[in-house]
Amino acid sequence: MAEEKATYKNSGVDLSIYATSMEKLPGIVAKTFTPRVMRLDGGFAGLFSLNGKISEDGPAKKYTDPVLVSCTDGVGTKIKIACAANRHDTVGIDLVAMSVNDAICCGAAPLFFLDYVAMPKDNPTLLERIVSGIAEGCKSGGAALIGGETAILPDMYNEGEYDLAGFCVGVAERSEIIDGKAIRENDILIGVASNGFHSNGYSLIRKAVFEMGGLSVATPLPEFENKTVADILLRPTSIYVRTVLTLLEKFKANDGIRGIAHITGGGLAENLGRILPNGLTAQIDENSWPVPPAFRWVQRLGNIDEDEMHRVFNMGIGLVLVVKPELELQVRETLLGQKRENWVLGKIVRG
Amino acid sequence: MAEEKATYKNSGVDLSIYATSMEKLPGIVAKTFTPRVMRLDGGFAGLFSLNGKISEDGPAKKYTDPVLVSCTDGVGTKIKIACAANRHDTVGIDLVAMSVNDAICCGAAPLFFLDYVAMPKDNPTLLERIVSGIAEGCKSGGAALIGGETAILPDMYNEGEYDLAGFCVGVAERSEIIDGKAIRENDILIGVASNGFHSNGYSLIRKAVFEMGGLSVATPLPEFENKTVADILLRPTSIYVRTVLTLLEKFKANDGIRGIAHITGGGLAENLGRILPNGLTAQIDENSWPVPPAFRWVQRLGNIDEDEMHRVFNMGIGLVLVVKPELELQVRETLLGQKRENWVLGKIVRG
Repeated sequence: MAEEKATYKNSGVDLSIYATSMEKLPGIVAKTFTPRVMRLDGGFAGLFSLNGKISEDGPAKKYTDPVLVSCTDGVGTKIKIACAANRHDTVGIDLVAMSVNDAICCGAAPLFFLDYVAMPKDNPTLLERIVSGIAEGCKSGGAALIGGETAILPDMYNEGEYDLAGFCVGVAERSEIIDGKAIRENDILIGVASNGFHSNGYSLIRKAVFEMGGLSVATPLPEFENKTVADILLRPTSIYVRTVLTLLEKFKANDGIRGIAHITGGGLAENLGRILPNGLTAQIDENSWPVPPAFRWVQRLGNIDEDEMHRVFNMGIGLVLVVKPELELQVRETLLGQKRENWVLGKIVRG
Repeated sequence: MAEEKATYKNSGVDLSIYATSMEKLPGIVAKTFTPRVMRLDGGFAGLFSLNGKISEDGPAKKYTDPVLVSCTDGVGTKIKIACAANRHDTVGIDLVAMSVNDAICCGAAPLFFLDYVAMPKDNPTLLERIVSGIAEGCKSGGAALIGGETAILPDMYNEGEYDLAGFCVGVAERSEIIDGKAIRENDILIGVASNGFHSNGYSLIRKAVFEMGGLSVATPLPEFENKTVADILLRPTSIYVRTVLTLLEKFKANDGIRGIAHITGGGLAENLGRILPNGLTAQIDENSWPVPPAFRWVQRLGNIDEDEMHRVFNMGIGLVLVVKPELELQVRETLLGQKRENWVLGKIVRG
């Protein structure tokens, strides 16, 4: 018998499968490209021209004093639910949403996105499904998917699982950066509906639903028209980019729209608190919006305290806008025009 | 006995430990800041002014037609060796190196970096060590560490392990982007020394050294002056940013320095191939540089074919410069001035 030889393949990394994976991606990715993407064949870098036409039929843009706004995030253990349900085409939307929603809170229009996918062994079909979701999210967020890394990491992930990280760069003129400093007493807080849990608190959800509730991803739920647990838990994170860009065009950054908070881990209080200037606080009526039934369902299964719910989940509010009082009705009308359900949550007070 | 209540904490995510982690990081991160970083307290976004002073005592920069160059990468299963050796202060250098070295190959000066750290439970001490390495890499690569995400993902990683992803954005004027199109017949290939395995091929290394060789990270190696296996395998990836920026300042992009390849997975042939225009090929003499003993040691332990070695590892060459023939000596002299050992590997020929 011949002596064993170590190869990259028999140590778990098959470069020929990797090449197959890489063949499928360019077509998916190209659909997200905007005129400012510079194609560079064969390189590892994504090139993006800051000046140039924003879209094929859009105006050219040239910045005077550009500020780059960059964000990174993952999807958390929502991925474990995608894996259990073998449904991989939406976590990519979540991945993009988590970063572009943070960028837009500064008033920055997303330019491009890069993804990092780590899996224990190469799987071209799985990768294609994940990247399709990322590309869908990128289109929705107006970000070109100009780069990414697929890391094959044997022995680091459980069979059939993977992890995702995303990275977004946006841009705004310096004068249009929203940093909360324009927020004033009596400004109105408008909450925009979330699409369920988005991508936070999934370790708590999994404990409540699977461990304590004894349910599986395939369990049909009579209280939700027999949708399955996976249907409820995998609803993708809303992408608020177009909504916010429309508002900023109409009501101007800092003048009309004075603050924007993406409600993620930490809930409404913590995420809104981050953008408020010293000396001001948010007076919120917790009965001003209807908490969606899915949150109550998880709360019941896990016997979770109300405070803990508000500390971990968005409770139905995915984005909060801090708005000049005179604009309340116009902003709400614009939101409804964008099919964004919304509520006045309260206002800014001293304290 | 009271009925069990699910909390974020008892589902594996302790926000108070998380807060402790987050307290230590700003001090480490601030050391990487350049004058163009805009501080935004409390937000999730990193803000970077494209125009402005490059360094405290440097000139102001304003771009005419800026191209953003972005790269992402991880460290692969080199992390498993860091974990086995409980030595976490160098994988961050690797993380930065993998991305900034790709950016600089396009002629782009790194501007900023963001990191994604995923771990099964929060560990402020471990996180601090990892981020210290990332900050060290950023300083060496001239990139401000302006953002990051620490994801606590119970049940997704093995106890004591973690994963890292990094994202870098650099910039160059459009006319200074190096895309290989300036490469001509007879251009000289200069190879710059690597610092060992860098961050590629670690699944193969682990099979050879641990599985077939039966060694552990702590095994002292007489052939390497009794350095341990971890000492040899955790040498951090070289960061070539300053070296390349010095060369570009002196010899100009595309005129003198016509192509740059970062030698990563795929080895010399594949990575150099990526940047060559159609009709040209690299004629390389494989005896033109000394393969470092560490590569031969891994090869021996794993009984790895010579071809496989060259297909997976950098074999001692971390960066290849494609240079105008007349500049060979000057470029090599400049490299030596930067303490970069280098060799003429061959030249560009038709084919």
